[in-house]
Amino acid sequence: MIHKDRTAPVGVFDSGVGGLTVAREIMRQLPDENIVYFGDTARVPYGSKSKNNIIRFSRQIIRFLETKSVKAIVIACNTASALALDVLKEESDIPVIGVITPGARAAVKETRSKKIGVVGTEATIRSHTYSKVITEMEPEASVIGKPCPLFVPLVEEGFAKHHVTDEIIEYYLKEMKHSDIDTMILGCTHYPLLRSRIMEYFGKDVHIVNPAYETAMDLKALLVGQDMDNDSGNLARYEFYVSDTAEKFKHFANSILPYNVETIQQINIEEY
Amino acid sequence: MIHKDRTAPVGVFDSGVGGLTVAREIMRQLPDENIVYFGDTARVPYGSKSKNNIIRFSRQIIRFLETKSVKAIVIACNTASALALDVLKEESDIPVIGVITPGARAAVKETRSKKIGVVGTEATIRSHTYSKVITEMEPEASVIGKPCPLFVPLVEEGFAKHHVTDEIIEYYLKEMKHSDIDTMILGCTHYPLLRSRIMEYFGKDVHIVNPAYETAMDLKALLVGQDMDNDSGNLARYEFYVSDTAEKFKHFANSILPYNVETIQQINIEEY
Repeated sequence: MIHKDRTAPVGVFDSGVGGLTVAREIMRQLPDENIVYFGDTARVPYGSKSKNNIIRFSRQIIRFLETKSVKAIVIACNTASALALDVLKEESDIPVIGVITPGARAAVKETRSKKIGVVGTEATIRSHTYSKVITEMEPEASVIGKPCPLFVPLVEEGFAKHHVTDEIIEYYLKEMKHSDIDTMILGCTHYPLLRSRIMEYFGKDVHIVNPAYETAMDLKALLVGQDMDNDSGNLARYEFYVSDTAEKFKHFANSILPYNVETIQQINIEEY
Repeated sequence: MIHKDRTAPVGVFDSGVGGLTVAREIMRQLPDENIVYFGDTARVPYGSKSKNNIIRFSRQIIRFLETKSVKAIVIACNTASALALDVLKEESDIPVIGVITPGARAAVKETRSKKIGVVGTEATIRSHTYSKVITEMEPEASVIGKPCPLFVPLVEEGFAKHHVTDEIIEYYLKEMKHSDIDTMILGCTHYPLLRSRIMEYFGKDVHIVNPAYETAMDLKALLVGQDMDNDSGNLARYEFYVSDTAEKFKHFANSILPYNVETIQQINIEEY
């Protein structure tokens, strides 16, 4: 069922809080769109888990978002985009977009050397989805991927500005720094919160791509193209749902979003 | 239903691999007991999640273990022991024990200054369960708790021997080192894998307690007391189940256990 109701919300989901960096970009670029955000905080993180489970989790979330009559869905999670987008797109009547294609496109646009680095979770890197998408766009490109599994807990536990984070950045990215990449994709929605440290480490010769910006552009193109963009002129409404307690999510949300999130509702996602 | 079948297995569960440090101790002290181990690798970690979800997850696991006709259950996870043991004990016809009471008892036996430190997950420390149990045993004791949420990812990502781990140990435990504790409980089943680094940091004036040892003793007392210990003389059988792929679990299990685990079965725990 295609919702021809232009005022219907856009569904955005992630394994937890990281996808808020994408939601923030949608709020900025598409200020008229209503958003229903879901963070799977009961089962976070996804990055160390298997394809089958990530597809199963994502299906439950899409069924939940359908109960909110969303008109389009953004998978604001690199791991779920890398492992589940193809399957979910086929199954769903609602348009579904992920963050990988937008991120890959931005990198291909940017690179001169055609050597692109990608950092992400274990599952994202192991899937080689970024490589596949990038070389489809630019057959001469070569892609170096590196999983950085400690980045998410470092961000979540408030170590983004602690000096051990610099040491762990060096530990993971030393080889990539000494390669000839000129562009690097932050292939996990938590990583933009380490962006300044990573930029500092690489210096100004490497361009750092955050797929959130292009993802919001893709969403806009999709909605305008299908004549589904919200032109009601009403103030946008944002709803937040999580599968674990709201407390920690709220704290994090309020540090990422440009306004204070007051109400966050907890649901049992396993029921969907 | 009490299983009077002495050869029935003992169920042991954890949010993931950490509980294998407890299973290892049971294998050592009770070599005749069959074990069914379950690691909830699809929803790991528990330490940052809420009481309600941890109770719900634990209930599903107990229902699964009941299908394996276990005669007793060991919650080899501090977080689930701290938040769910009381409820689960009431609901279950099978005896259920956790790791908190054994760990607390060992610490109370050990301490001279009656000042005890406890390190654990966010959820374990916030629950104050160790404090409650310790002061019930020794009303004069005082307990200092400290959540160390990065310890689990550091262990899981293979950083146990990396020097950043020492810095993070110092970051979390500096205050505790300068307190007057003489005994500290490793209140998370992953932490024994950092034991030598933590012992080095504290020096020999602080006794480090790993509850796994006392938990296996408690299990033995329970089984002997209820005339349920396995005296068949047959070689013990160990079965392993997980809720996500077996691959990573297997690697970890083989580094913790004294023998190679060949077969690990994946189940969908949400169906229980």
